[in-house]
Amino acid sequence: MNNYKLILAYDGTPYHGWQMQDNAITIQQCLSDAIERIFGEKCTIYGSSRTDKGVHAEGFCCNFRSEKDRDCEKIAYGLNAVLPESICVLECHKVGEDFNARFDARGKQYTYKIWNSRRRNPFLLDKALHHPVPIDAQMLNEQAKDYIGTHDFSAFCAAGGTTVSNVRTIFDCSVERQGDMVIFKVKGDGFLYNMVRIMVGTLLDINSGKIQKGSIPEIIESRSRLSAGITAKAHGLYLSEVYY
Amino acid sequence: MNNYKLILAYDGTPYHGWQMQDNAITIQQCLSDAIERIFGEKCTIYGSSRTDKGVHAEGFCCNFRSEKDRDCEKIAYGLNAVLPESICVLECHKVGEDFNARFDARGKQYTYKIWNSRRRNPFLLDKALHHPVPIDAQMLNEQAKDYIGTHDFSAFCAAGGTTVSNVRTIFDCSVERQGDMVIFKVKGDGFLYNMVRIMVGTLLDINSGKIQKGSIPEIIESRSRLSAGITAKAHGLYLSEVYY
Repeated sequence: MNNYKLILAYDGTPYHGWQMQDNAITIQQCLSDAIERIFGEKCTIYGSSRTDKGVHAEGFCCNFRSEKDRDCEKIAYGLNAVLPESICVLECHKVGEDFNARFDARGKQYTYKIWNSRRRNPFLLDKALHHPVPIDAQMLNEQAKDYIGTHDFSAFCAAGGTTVSNVRTIFDCSVERQGDMVIFKVKGDGFLYNMVRIMVGTLLDINSGKIQKGSIPEIIESRSRLSAGITAKAHGLYLSEVYY
Repeated sequence: MNNYKLILAYDGTPYHGWQMQDNAITIQQCLSDAIERIFGEKCTIYGSSRTDKGVHAEGFCCNFRSEKDRDCEKIAYGLNAVLPESICVLECHKVGEDFNARFDARGKQYTYKIWNSRRRNPFLLDKALHHPVPIDAQMLNEQAKDYIGTHDFSAFCAAGGTTVSNVRTIFDCSVERQGDMVIFKVKGDGFLYNMVRIMVGTLLDINSGKIQKGSIPEIIESRSRLSAGITAKAHGLYLSEVYY
């Protein structure tokens, strides 16, 4: 049995997230249809994570198995020829038969992009959050360091999360300005439902003064969603990389 | 009489170019409607240039006159509130009554973006040309220097151009690689119909070997459209700045 690992980039705007659903177009559905066309058979696809409606990916990872032994570059080329243009297979690799993109993931990196200018950017409408109020990126970078470590992140989990434990380890977290763009990056062993978007929303609330500087440790400790900030919109969020 | 100068950014994808037309949505039409809503009167808009269907702008310039004396920041804010999101007023300034965005322009800078990777970029589908074959940006940068100077650019003018003289001065021209993106920039006192796109297409034909290295001077001298290269697609082109 061949086990193929794919790395995908996609613009999440036109999709109802990664996961297959009845009556809605999803990335997994499009990829499943494309694999069926190329391989001539239905294959189950295992995704590293679920991304929500409107969330993008620069390096989503998934795998599927098939008896058919094909050249990896030809698979990538063939899938890209039949996939919608907003989804692209960046890489295809053969991996060990036991590899599972979801259960073997050791960590993930997410990026959140904020267009921080008085004026909107017509080229980034669905690709970055437009935040017209000035952001003190250096200050938020210092605040973001309080996310690093192993914590119970219940305060940063939206209702609807289904995990047994809310303890996660954040390896690194930063906020950086590049011109009018403010870029939030976070790397961790796993993330709760809406966790990254609430982390970003909390930083924006600290920027506006709605939440006090230095209070991230006590928000974490509270384990209460009510003490954290808003949930930043989906369209600024990118799943950037999955580590194995 | 007040004369207002606007600097615009727009994503040209959904529009049939700048210039007003019957039965087609154009940027000028959208701006005209927005000004009418904000000023309560129809105003004639003078654009620095016409951009074609699908061409973008990072710094398009235009002006319009009105008896009504309004605060410039409020005009920009008001127009942005009623314009489609894909068009943004970046700046609004009061200028002398005689200023005309078209006739007073002393030069323009265009940018052409090429996504030069085997794989398409789902985030740049209508924003950059996807060219999967490797580009030697350093070589093309040397070739592009041959465009600089005052020349008859008839070989770089599509049929349908209506100018009296085809002599233009190119002040600067360069090709630069930034990761997988190859960026062509050209600054000149004016440009013929499709001139920038043919300049880029000719460089791509030099890259592929279809046109010989070092032949730009003789292509210019030929004054024949047939000796130049292809017309690169509209969606990689940006009007970046207009100089007065």
